[in-house]
Amino acid sequence: MADLKFGLIGTGFMGKAHAIALKAAPTVFSLPAFPVCELLAEVDDEQAVRKARELGFARSTGDWKALVEDPDVDVVDICAPNFLHKEMALAAIAAGKHVYAEKPLALSAVDAQAMVEAAEAAGVKTLVGFNYIRNSATQLAREIVQSGEIGELVHFRGRHNEDYLADPTKPHDWHTRRATAGAGALGDLGSHILNMAEYLTGQRIGEVCGQLQTVIPQRALPDGGGGMEEVENDDQAQALLRFDGGLIGNLETSRVATGRKMGLAYTLTGTRGSIIFDQERMSELQLYKHTGPEGRRGFSTLLIGPEHPDYAAFSPAPGHGLGYNDQKIIEIRDLVEGIVGDRPLYPNFREAARVNRLIEAIERSHLEGNWVSVSG
Amino acid sequence: MADLKFGLIGTGFMGKAHAIALKAAPTVFSLPAFPVCELLAEVDDEQAVRKARELGFARSTGDWKALVEDPDVDVVDICAPNFLHKEMALAAIAAGKHVYAEKPLALSAVDAQAMVEAAEAAGVKTLVGFNYIRNSATQLAREIVQSGEIGELVHFRGRHNEDYLADPTKPHDWHTRRATAGAGALGDLGSHILNMAEYLTGQRIGEVCGQLQTVIPQRALPDGGGGMEEVENDDQAQALLRFDGGLIGNLETSRVATGRKMGLAYTLTGTRGSIIFDQERMSELQLYKHTGPEGRRGFSTLLIGPEHPDYAAFSPAPGHGLGYNDQKIIEIRDLVEGIVGDRPLYPNFREAARVNRLIEAIERSHLEGNWVSVSG
Amino acid sequence: MADLKFGLIGTGFMGKAHAIALKAAPTVFSLPAFPVCELLAEVDDEQAVRKARELGFARSTGDWKALVEDPDVDVVDICAPNFLHKEMALAAIAAGKHVYAEKPLALSAVDAQAMVEAAEAAGVKTLVGFNYIRNSATQLAREIVQSGEIGELVHFRGRHNEDYLADPTKPHDWHTRRATAGAGALGDLGSHILNMAEYLTGQRIGEVCGQLQTVIPQRALPDGGGGMEEVENDDQAQALLRFDGGLIGNLETSRVATGRKMGLAYTLTGTRGSIIFDQERMSELQLYKHTGPEGRRGFSTLLIGPEHPDYAAFSPAPGHGLGYNDQKIIEIRDLVEGIVGDRPLYPNFREAARVNRLIEAIERSHLEGNWVSVSG
Amino acid sequence: MADLKFGLIGTGFMGKAHAIALKAAPTVFSLPAFPVCELLAEVDDEQAVRKARELGFARSTGDWKALVEDPDVDVVDICAPNFLHKEMALAAIAAGKHVYAEKPLALSAVDAQAMVEAAEAAGVKTLVGFNYIRNSATQLAREIVQSGEIGELVHFRGRHNEDYLADPTKPHDWHTRRATAGAGALGDLGSHILNMAEYLTGQRIGEVCGQLQTVIPQRALPDGGGGMEEVENDDQAQALLRFDGGLIGNLETSRVATGRKMGLAYTLTGTRGSIIFDQERMSELQLYKHTGPEGRRGFSTLLIGPEHPDYAAFSPAPGHGLGYNDQKIIEIRDLVEGIVGDRPLYPNFREAARVNRLIEAIERSHLEGNWVSVSG
Repeated sequence: MADLKFGLIGTGFMGKAHAIALKAAPTVFSLPAFPVCELLAEVDDEQAVRKARELGFARSTGDWKALVEDPDVDVVDICAPNFLHKEMALAAIAAGKHVYAEKPLALSAVDAQAMVEAAEAAGVKTLVGFNYIRNSATQLAREIVQSGEIGELVHFRGRHNEDYLADPTKPHDWHTRRATAGAGALGDLGSHILNMAEYLTGQRIGEVCGQLQTVIPQRALPDGGGGMEEVENDDQAQALLRFDGGLIGNLETSRVATGRKMGLAYTLTGTRGSIIFDQERMSELQLYKHTGPEGRRGFSTLLIGPEHPDYAAFSPAPGHGLGYNDQKIIEIRDLVEGIVGDRPLYPNFREAARVNRLIEAIERSHLEGNWVSVSG
Repeated sequence: MADLKFGLIGTGFMGKAHAIALKAAPTVFSLPAFPVCELLAEVDDEQAVRKARELGFARSTGDWKALVEDPDVDVVDICAPNFLHKEMALAAIAAGKHVYAEKPLALSAVDAQAMVEAAEAAGVKTLVGFNYIRNSATQLAREIVQSGEIGELVHFRGRHNEDYLADPTKPHDWHTRRATAGAGALGDLGSHILNMAEYLTGQRIGEVCGQLQTVIPQRALPDGGGGMEEVENDDQAQALLRFDGGLIGNLETSRVATGRKMGLAYTLTGTRGSIIFDQERMSELQLYKHTGPEGRRGFSTLLIGPEHPDYAAFSPAPGHGLGYNDQKIIEIRDLVEGIVGDRPLYPNFREAARVNRLIEAIERSHLEGNWVSVSG
Repeated sequence: MADLKFGLIGTGFMGKAHAIALKAAPTVFSLPAFPVCELLAEVDDEQAVRKARELGFARSTGDWKALVEDPDVDVVDICAPNFLHKEMALAAIAAGKHVYAEKPLALSAVDAQAMVEAAEAAGVKTLVGFNYIRNSATQLAREIVQSGEIGELVHFRGRHNEDYLADPTKPHDWHTRRATAGAGALGDLGSHILNMAEYLTGQRIGEVCGQLQTVIPQRALPDGGGGMEEVENDDQAQALLRFDGGLIGNLETSRVATGRKMGLAYTLTGTRGSIIFDQERMSELQLYKHTGPEGRRGFSTLLIGPEHPDYAAFSPAPGHGLGYNDQKIIEIRDLVEGIVGDRPLYPNFREAARVNRLIEAIERSHLEGNWVSVSG
Repeated sequence: MADLKFGLIGTGFMGKAHAIALKAAPTVFSLPAFPVCELLAEVDDEQAVRKARELGFARSTGDWKALVEDPDVDVVDICAPNFLHKEMALAAIAAGKHVYAEKPLALSAVDAQAMVEAAEAAGVKTLVGFNYIRNSATQLAREIVQSGEIGELVHFRGRHNEDYLADPTKPHDWHTRRATAGAGALGDLGSHILNMAEYLTGQRIGEVCGQLQTVIPQRALPDGGGGMEEVENDDQAQALLRFDGGLIGNLETSRVATGRKMGLAYTLTGTRGSIIFDQERMSELQLYKHTGPEGRRGFSTLLIGPEHPDYAAFSPAPGHGLGYNDQKIIEIRDLVEGIVGDRPLYPNFREAARVNRLIEAIERSHLEGNWVSVSG
């Protein structure tokens, strides 16, 4: 089995998740190439050395540009803060590397588009880490929709709410600044539910009507000096949706929704049944069929098991449960198979750039106070 | 104890519910007057006689106009189809009767306004049957919001979805015709969640941005002859909301949401906590407090009990459960107390007419494709 | 329609529930006789007068013996404390009255048996208020079991836990004394789940192996003087069960189970499916069918609706919810129909006496430390 | 960092789970030694070679005895069928290896005891894979109990039900034979809940009263020839429990409980609160506190997060969810730390042998029809 050598940039929340997944993936799945944890980049040499030891990478560097250029790196894996994605990805593409990046792809649709064009011109593979679509339960939801099992879709409802910025005394960090985060909740969390809306329905969002709000308008500076500054992006956002296939829907997202920790959830309503899902109970799907005797109809709680997508590789026994990192393992599997098999990856930069366009359409709709259409 | 004599018009779903509540209310609650089931009107004498026997009314008539004029009727209780509300209510008001009507108050905001003005000019009491706001759990939700227990509200999410018209082979009935129903799901079900949005938040909806859809555009004629005709109102609707107090929110309503039977639900997100409620589990409220040790925070399932509004009259023991008709018993209590005590009733015609205006604002917003403000 | 005149003794929790149900029943259901609230007895005239006014009874008396003898009383309805059931019932039977009594029937199996024999010798109808078996969801569970829809039963699990005596500072009351309550949790709550075990399975419990415990061995005297006395009966109990049909099972009951408010629950496991129910969510039943594609099997949440037993009389629309008092309304319907139609009632004194025998068998098993069989 | 070299015997469900965990553990946790996947044994060379490649082991052998003797193996990891545990463990111990074995430890208490004595005489470390106690939510439950947060425990209720043998047409396999499995559901699943009962409560089970049943008494031979043979062990079992500290409880286990897939669940009732857990929703714990205003008491759903045991190593964000294999990663962490730090491991062979004794006590109690005490 050939090797596929990974160069990881960034070792925060997502960097560690990628590392865990890279280590476990070849044992969980039978892969066409072995994903090697080859090189790790951090902000300086010392931290890079330490993190490479912790996360199990063979080599390390304090200079991400060196990583991008390294001849022994096949895939550049970008887990650095969002505002660095563009520069890193363009450099990696220029060096002919495949790029695996965390979401959101870029701070703006224009930047994202530049990344798409560079990647497509270079012919490298790209994948963006919208990992929640890899969860077995969500893959199952899509399978049920596509098979026609719940008829034609008539409504989509989605949300991705968390409360990590609900505390008004929490100071500014990269999330709250336009220059480092772009959009707020809409970019960080809304990007997931926007991508998922299209993934699940198999339809493109054609028009949006959006509304944004910064609930906590000022926050303290992180230096502890007591100064306050304006929060530069949305704490919560919501939108009505019109899909190209005629379907309508709505979504909301928030980083100040007290009580929600991993509150990505959706309801898919079809003419012959419905699906309800909540990522806080990620290993189950509620399925309703509008058939059979009326007195026996109800939402069934399907516990994910080996009959469902990708579960069997983790356990042969049903209901044993997948966790957050297992989604990343599935993502790695898709990435490795796609690169080795030279097959299209989903969601690639082009698809992720669409999410940036949707975010901006919602922002524009908010500013203009009317519906905004979204192209391509 | 004095008597308060009721004249009931209409004996369908709601008429029976009113009758049950009138019978039980004086035993459940200590009332300032005894609600007498005095006179019942149905479409003809024969049916009126039969229904009066079934529902326990002293007298009956096949002519609702006679009921309205009857000197021994203090309160005219209108459970007839929606399109008759206006004529009946105006006649009752003209006869100096108090009026208790089912929702929606009227088929249009103009009609509703005429009813408000007539009632206020005559000085009679009015109450409209938005009974779900009487549920202990929902009263508790409002109490929690008003007390500041979950801080300031930052988001309202509501829905009222059912699936009674999900079957496309179901023929036309009064729901599907403009002349008999006015708006579709938005009028029948949406009226509940619109009223409840303002009840729960204590804020007025100032602007709406709405979207309507007739999912099943044609239905068979009820004569069985096989002819098809257009469905004249919405099967589903959704809206973004901007409240006068700055709060934002969204709602949706549907009569084709497969799997939902009594799918009125809301989430109230505050700066220091949140509330989740689903009428399909009407005797419990989920409450989250964003305080205390982080590792002990979670949504608590409060089972309704004697500490909560109006529950103790039904049972001294917690968690024993209220049912649909119990909400109507509470409504009757409010009605009787309001009339006898000459106190304002909520929601009266003026309040219910507001719901008609909100419905029309959502419809207009849909047609115009932008935000619409709602006065008064 | 003839009248059936009720004489109610006792106006606490259960007395009021009976009164509400008597008032509402003839409007909810089409009854073969009208249940008249004729006469009410309380401990003295003053209280009797007041309570008759509150609960809507025509006449009152401070002497329950007068009620029992009253020629205008057809049914003696005993809601007095348990230790009075025997004397009152025997007097009522001696006067030729039908008897409707709350559970548990008696403080001992011997007493219960005397009551059975008197009632059967006199040929009067008897009914004991195990009202939870009247809940639509539980009637549905029995229907599903009996139809063979979940195959043959292989296991029964039941509990009835509450926490009304969890607070150790709560002083003695009638529950904690042998002379007034007989068994503790086992008598008060366990009686429900024992009756329900046989009702649901359609099998008799043939042998039990039980264990009892008084968790809080001493409580303060209710006089507030600070004296402590021994608690005379069980705070919690549990048992293994062997049914006559070969089925095995277990149950537990507690009055100190912190967090449980109306914690009656059961799981019925069959060879082709299973049922789960929790009275705290009394309007839903979880049904699992071990058929169809494995990937679509899961517990379905059936919301009770008009297809299910007795629901349609309360509402024509599914999922609108029944409450505690609605169970009593159904019980009244059964009582009136049984008396007027001269049909067997369930559970009558004979059936309720069986529950007393089961309680004593569990107590004896606890003392002897082995299995005890239960006759008849 | 030193290496700790693992030799894995057996590559079924559990073998793969161990391999995944060995790969991921050093990236998830900071370990004091690196767990090396050194040598893998399967039933023949060909299969061993193939599986070593799949699961990422450096070397392979078709002879487990060679593995046990291999000088480059520090830890023998036994995932072979239960009936082989004893022979393999004794050989490993004789070779001076640490032993990590799957549960149940042995087919009988006598065998288990021999294994304990050998291990203790040799001074090697042992660990048995009762992995569900490693779940964050269950560790949290224990922490809450031990801290006194819910007062003193008054009741334990446990179950571990699944339905993998519910289908009566499923032929015999190793589970159904005494010689290969020992006890049935009681050994396979009941062992988990027995161990967990003591882990959670911190008390020893002193006496049991048990009941076993083989629901499907005969099954087809696996050869497909149509012959039927007796099932040799229990399909379901249940027991009353008396703990040494005075606590009482009950448990049940089944392999024919239709609808349960990973149905390990428990309720811990304390004097000041209660805990409910269900492994099918493994990333949440229900906690009730019997304090504060009565109207605000209810079971809270705690989503597992970084404040809870061992979660933060997997994700810094709450509610993101752990999966089945994550429990094994925590187990590996404990194993490596215990061996390197020369600290006691839990549950070691001595603790696991206790589970075998509890199983046999329940079986004996069933046969004798009375309570049986359990020593040591």
